[in-house]
Amino acid sequence: MTSLALLTDFYELTMAYGYWRAGMVRREAAFHLFFREEPFGGDYAIAAGLAPAIDYLNALRFDDDDLRYLANFFPADYLDYLGTMRFTCDVDAIPEGTTVFAHEPLVRVCGPIDQAQIVESALLNIINFQTLIATKASRIVAAAQGDPVIDFGLRRAQGNDGAVAATRAAFVGGVRATSNVLAGARFGIPVKGTHAHSWVMSFPSEREAFSAYAEVMPANSLLLVDTYDTLRGVENAIEVGKELRARGHELVGVRLDSGDLATLSIAARKMLDDAGFPNAVIAASNELDEHSITALKEAGAKINVWGVGTRLITAFDQPALGGVYKLTAIRDAGGEWERRIKLSSDPGKTSSPGILQVRRCADRDILYDEILGVSNDGEDLLVPIFRKGQLVYDVPPLDSIRANPHARPVEIEPLLAEVRRQMIAAASANAAPVSNAATRDTLS
Amino acid sequence: MTSLALLTDFYELTMAYGYWRAGMVRREAAFHLFFREEPFGGDYAIAAGLAPAIDYLNALRFDDDDLRYLANFFPADYLDYLGTMRFTCDVDAIPEGTTVFAHEPLVRVCGPIDQAQIVESALLNIINFQTLIATKASRIVAAAQGDPVIDFGLRRAQGNDGAVAATRAAFVGGVRATSNVLAGARFGIPVKGTHAHSWVMSFPSEREAFSAYAEVMPANSLLLVDTYDTLRGVENAIEVGKELRARGHELVGVRLDSGDLATLSIAARKMLDDAGFPNAVIAASNELDEHSITALKEAGAKINVWGVGTRLITAFDQPALGGVYKLTAIRDAGGEWERRIKLSSDPGKTSSPGILQVRRCADRDILYDEILGVSNDGEDLLVPIFRKGQLVYDVPPLDSIRANPHARPVEIEPLLAEVRRQMIAAASANAAPVSNAATRDTLS
Repeated sequence: MTSLALLTDFYELTMAYGYWRAGMVRREAAFHLFFREEPFGGDYAIAAGLAPAIDYLNALRFDDDDLRYLANFFPADYLDYLGTMRFTCDVDAIPEGTTVFAHEPLVRVCGPIDQAQIVESALLNIINFQTLIATKASRIVAAAQGDPVIDFGLRRAQGNDGAVAATRAAFVGGVRATSNVLAGARFGIPVKGTHAHSWVMSFPSEREAFSAYAEVMPANSLLLVDTYDTLRGVENAIEVGKELRARGHELVGVRLDSGDLATLSIAARKMLDDAGFPNAVIAASNELDEHSITALKEAGAKINVWGVGTRLITAFDQPALGGVYKLTAIRDAGGEWERRIKLSSDPGKTSSPGILQVRRCADRDILYDEILGVSNDGEDLLVPIFRKGQLVYDVPPLDSIRANPHARPVEIEPLLAEVRRQMIAAASANAAPVSNAATRDTLS
Repeated sequence: MTSLALLTDFYELTMAYGYWRAGMVRREAAFHLFFREEPFGGDYAIAAGLAPAIDYLNALRFDDDDLRYLANFFPADYLDYLGTMRFTCDVDAIPEGTTVFAHEPLVRVCGPIDQAQIVESALLNIINFQTLIATKASRIVAAAQGDPVIDFGLRRAQGNDGAVAATRAAFVGGVRATSNVLAGARFGIPVKGTHAHSWVMSFPSEREAFSAYAEVMPANSLLLVDTYDTLRGVENAIEVGKELRARGHELVGVRLDSGDLATLSIAARKMLDDAGFPNAVIAASNELDEHSITALKEAGAKINVWGVGTRLITAFDQPALGGVYKLTAIRDAGGEWERRIKLSSDPGKTSSPGILQVRRCADRDILYDEILGVSNDGEDLLVPIFRKGQLVYDVPPLDSIRANPHARPVEIEPLLAEVRRQMIAAASANAAPVSNAATRDTLS
């Protein structure tokens, strides 16, 4: 992977330069990446984007072209330093496909303050987007109640990576296949597709278009029937299905792309069944999402395969996850962590200090500070990814990741809650920054 | 640029293969890319994405890796053909930065039907997204009434290209600078940024953090004042401004990122003016868009620079432009065009047939068929981009492109309207495809 070192907000670099110039790059910082509210008005999210984030961190270095550009802004002595900088932070993160909740850190970065700062923008860009889309996908897949869901969103996606990365995330969220060939090639996701209206329009008649398609691709005969009139299209598809059967092939099915999908699918199902094609599938597309799929299911639609485009690939009803990346502790290299907190007039935006971890217990998650500890049994969700910049995590193959969404409460461990309360009180009284030595003594 | 040949929906390739297998690749097709409704409830859009679309078309070829992957689906004889295929279509398009309206073709592709088909997905992906963001940017820039607008959206963008491509489009739409260093390096867009809350939190006090920043970057001292308490932050910034002035530098200003931006900016303006810093700017950020900027202006906010993030970079309130790419005519190579039309139960979705062009007249745009002609004077918006696959267009430098939005009516030229009417009537009567030889005789 090409380094995306310049994929960063300029202020990350001015701060990194400032830390270096001020002699502070031996200071270490702890940052946590988390979101404050589950997207789509839902009660969970699906963590995604860790593997591409690992690729980014592994490839992170400022090459000669990068440095030449940065010479517009920074002095040569700093560029020399930046050119030799290698990522040496510790990173812990929640594996992809895990159900996660507001305020749980998805990624934790601890290390030299300038490095931990520089990676903020790209980590947010990657994790915010993939988590958003994996979550949207899992909601749509749930609505489809076991029917396959296929991503058709490339043409409406936000740029080429907006399509390719989103397709990967959609697969994490449970989508089974995609129309996007590049995503298929890059990630091994199954690709699907047959023909568009233009195929039908380029022949003298729909019937001839279907016959020609079935002739050249007899095993992939899912025919789009709404170019002129949907139910006449189904009739034509049935006729071609009979031709196919005479040649030893079976009609895969029909695709509906406009009109009243419930009524049309019920009519098409009856026509196909009556004509002896009970196994022909009915696929549907046209601005589908979890809400319209649920409504169609409730209306008795006879649809077996759901092609979802715009509303999945852009997470149309909420196209960004508001993930943030917050400094929560700082120390001299090898010293004791000092906790830090950022206040906000909105209490939900005041950060939690410390070195945070999430313990998944039987019936709840507990957010705790690793230094303060936790008394409940369970599994810690953040696992080691990098140690001093070395990858220590076996990235699982994409097709082994499967979301299993479930809602559950998140509680703050009492020791952490008390430290947080004390820090807020002290900061509010002083209207000044507070730190808090990160030991249990603080509470005494 | 690396070829993005695989950035396509699989059905483009199955159709292209079908045309080849059926011996139809000497047929030529005309496709038009257009949208059916102006985004954001507005009355215009700003065309964008042509330069990256040209890069895509120029680089289009299926390389050995592509063909190895496609061998999973297609026979060797077709892959041999695909590997030698070069783009030989004619392309006409509306230059970037032009104000455009629903139903106006932004791009027209005429040439071998398989090639014109394969490029559909990528052209839609590029043009839809960049036009969407350029339009959003121009709306935000208009709301800012001449104040500079800066893109801060990288962390919330839809993937890395979702950030970089959108930043380019935002610049076309009138945004003046970006925080995104990669977009700056790639496109020459000015980059801006100073520091985050984490900088402040990594020092013992806000005052020390501001002093340290001003010490190392005296010429870039736009200080973020809301880490603990915004107006105390302004006081600290003023103190540091005095230090800077004593050293021969001027405080650039302050940035507000939370709270009631109107009230805080008015108070901050007074504090800065009273302290002798009338030229210090007040920048603001925090989920801004054209609506909140307009409301802040109306509330008398004293904000000079607007940092816009999520709502620009994702076009939050409408994150996709519904552009489509429709077959409108077909012919044997060198023969007469036959018009094609796609019907829809929604009359707004029935396509216009022919070889379409837009004439910009003094007070309106006229959509017409080049074969039928047009009688009004004016400038044709679609200009030649490729002729037989050769680039014939001088791509203007990005910084020479400036949107100048204005609403105006679009009319269909009467000769085209009549052909379209006849084709719809004939098709509806037959519930069958219709073609229409593309000559004036049709109307007699």
